[in-house]
Amino acid sequence: MSQRAVIKDIVITPVAFHDMPLLNSVGVHEPFALRSIIEVIITDTTYGLGESYGDSTHLDRLRKAADQIKASALSIYDTNSIYQICVDSLAGDLTTGGDGMAGMVTTASVPDKVFSPFEVACLDIQGKLAGIPVSDLLGGRVRDNVQYSAYLFYKWAGHPGHPDDEYGAALDPQGLITQAHRIIAEYGFKAIKLKGGVFPPAQEVAAIKALHAEFPSTPLRLDPNAAWTVETSKWVATELASIVEYLEDPAPEIEGMAAVAVEATMPLATNMAVVAFSHLPASIAQNAVQVVLSDHHFWGGLRKSQTLANICATWDVRLSMHSNSHLGISLAAMTHLASATPNLDYACDTHWPWKRRDEDVIVDGALEWADGGVVVPTKPGLGVEIDRVKLAQLHQQYLDCGIRKRDDTTYMRKFQPGFSSDIPRW
Amino acid sequence: MSQRAVIKDIVITPVAFHDMPLLNSVGVHEPFALRSIIEVIITDTTYGLGESYGDSTHLDRLRKAADQIKASALSIYDTNSIYQICVDSLAGDLTTGGDGMAGMVTTASVPDKVFSPFEVACLDIQGKLAGIPVSDLLGGRVRDNVQYSAYLFYKWAGHPGHPDDEYGAALDPQGLITQAHRIIAEYGFKAIKLKGGVFPPAQEVAAIKALHAEFPSTPLRLDPNAAWTVETSKWVATELASIVEYLEDPAPEIEGMAAVAVEATMPLATNMAVVAFSHLPASIAQNAVQVVLSDHHFWGGLRKSQTLANICATWDVRLSMHSNSHLGISLAAMTHLASATPNLDYACDTHWPWKRRDEDVIVDGALEWADGGVVVPTKPGLGVEIDRVKLAQLHQQYLDCGIRKRDDTTYMRKFQPGFSSDIPRW
Repeated sequence: MSQRAVIKDIVITPVAFHDMPLLNSVGVHEPFALRSIIEVIITDTTYGLGESYGDSTHLDRLRKAADQIKASALSIYDTNSIYQICVDSLAGDLTTGGDGMAGMVTTASVPDKVFSPFEVACLDIQGKLAGIPVSDLLGGRVRDNVQYSAYLFYKWAGHPGHPDDEYGAALDPQGLITQAHRIIAEYGFKAIKLKGGVFPPAQEVAAIKALHAEFPSTPLRLDPNAAWTVETSKWVATELASIVEYLEDPAPEIEGMAAVAVEATMPLATNMAVVAFSHLPASIAQNAVQVVLSDHHFWGGLRKSQTLANICATWDVRLSMHSNSHLGISLAAMTHLASATPNLDYACDTHWPWKRRDEDVIVDGALEWADGGVVVPTKPGLGVEIDRVKLAQLHQQYLDCGIRKRDDTTYMRKFQPGFSSDIPRW
Repeated sequence: MSQRAVIKDIVITPVAFHDMPLLNSVGVHEPFALRSIIEVIITDTTYGLGESYGDSTHLDRLRKAADQIKASALSIYDTNSIYQICVDSLAGDLTTGGDGMAGMVTTASVPDKVFSPFEVACLDIQGKLAGIPVSDLLGGRVRDNVQYSAYLFYKWAGHPGHPDDEYGAALDPQGLITQAHRIIAEYGFKAIKLKGGVFPPAQEVAAIKALHAEFPSTPLRLDPNAAWTVETSKWVATELASIVEYLEDPAPEIEGMAAVAVEATMPLATNMAVVAFSHLPASIAQNAVQVVLSDHHFWGGLRKSQTLANICATWDVRLSMHSNSHLGISLAAMTHLASATPNLDYACDTHWPWKRRDEDVIVDGALEWADGGVVVPTKPGLGVEIDRVKLAQLHQQYLDCGIRKRDDTTYMRKFQPGFSSDIPRW
């Protein structure tokens, strides 16, 4: 209700960028990943940036909320009221999906997902106006470099019908080791995560053991996206005891995770079973997970992600960070958040290496990779600015590519008609 | 670690202001209440204000933390680092007490209590520098007027050996009704709280029933400060079913509250059993309380109080606000916090009517009472400024009064030598 720094306009631009054929339990990444770029504008020269999913259902919700935010003449400080508008704008919304995560996170809070990019953009402006980085709005950075993990994927050599991509195939332990060496050589990552749920569990256990032999001092994680039964998960947990730092989403749902946790000696992590504040009571009551993978895109923005962090600290649950395919605005927001959240001390996940180096919507040079992490930007706000030429290019790519929602399963079935995304599979 | 708006100095001034002989389960308020006034200074003209307890043990801790904050050349945005300094400065601290609450809250987090006034002062400066009220730093106000309750006390006519005070005695239902009419006439309060634990429960039940008959549409609360056994509490809960909006701290400890909650039909509230984040897991697991009375002075400042609010929202616990004897800086902070915390929707507690109108440390006129609440200040920061003449007067009063820690029990024993503060008493 402040009269200061009133939101004059909000521009939402869907974009598409090239993606590689990365395999997971629900299929394979399509040739393009979608995102929405949110610009919250207060003057001709001052704007804030947010980034979110690009599925058409989500875009429609963002646009509806944006219209109501604009009509309310709210200030960029009125995030409480903006949140309520997001809630209200969804009243009667009967659409489903739109999570941008290909069904891997299906029950996250829709208001939190809609609110998130507006909140990030408002914080970007708040930082710009105060001349401070977003990390300062979040309590000040406690680390100057936010560490990320080497996010390994089983993958094809290239999209069918297209030339091999720069990484080539990784369909066995040796392929993953080669991939890990390549990514680590470029970024310096000090932790490794493998997206599993692609091959029978014994093969993925063997892959982790091979990675452990190759990188004996590097923390490892395995994430099959809930592709296993509780019994299979327990077997994997026994096989990988003292080899992985955590096991991520082995089995579906809070109950499944809780059943595995009773026997697993390593912490269990999740970005599937616990993806909204409403899931926390049941999860905590059952000690279902020992690590929550936060993600400001579905936990309601940066401040609510810090609330999640404080809840985790209160209940002695640890904290890591989840990633989807994303661009530089998200990477900046993730980095500011992690830098100012003391107990977010695992290396965060990022899909960054799978994006073409020349495809983004921000001006080059704002985000510096060093020593396995991103140097926390110190410029006002997020520290990234829009590159309008690149934004226009990626928007044109969105218009041209024809993809309107992420659907790894249908794409997979083009090549494997009998493919099932049902979980648990094994 | 920001280089911007570095803290140059911190000045901590103990003050004393006149208090009235208000009765509670541990004794009676002394003739003076103590507070500490914290000024965080970044330039010759820019400072931020905080207010906290004035007990000597707490003052020593504040000064030790302040020295280390100054030595670290931190920015006013580095609240994460300031918090860690407060934690570190308490390492090896073997002193006890210093809670400023006469033993009624004994196990609150000491780092949170030490950190709180520094955080409030930093937010005051952040608001001043950005030209926005503190409520905007907390997500923007969702209400323009923060409602407070009429906080009734059993009391003597005046301090023994001194003339009667302006309120006179209240030692029976009629005395409380007279007191309520007087306070409500002046402030317009729309909820009533009675501090109990003073007389046998049947008398206090009768008092609440008399208040209910006199003010039939006004929400009522009774707070005996855990003076009752579980069995007595259950009897009171039965007697006051559908008469009080909540029953506050009837029995001691989480276990006691949980036992009462099983049978009570009204929500149970607390500012004694659950006074730190570490208490939440056990309380929530047992559904011990249905309303938490937040208090930024012991919950670690304004942002951590909002974390508490979000935890309450997540676990479906309601939120109200606790008060100690306080001055205008605290009232401003409480008001900003409540204005920007959507689920803090009970009328908050305040001891404001018990303070002399002319005794404070802030410049007159900043806080406007209207319609049972305080109009949320819209000036930058907290919206209150120090009055150096008044600060000097209340500091001199502190030097002269000789009181160095709040001790309602010892003061009571001057007049009732056999007085026991043991709880539960009935």
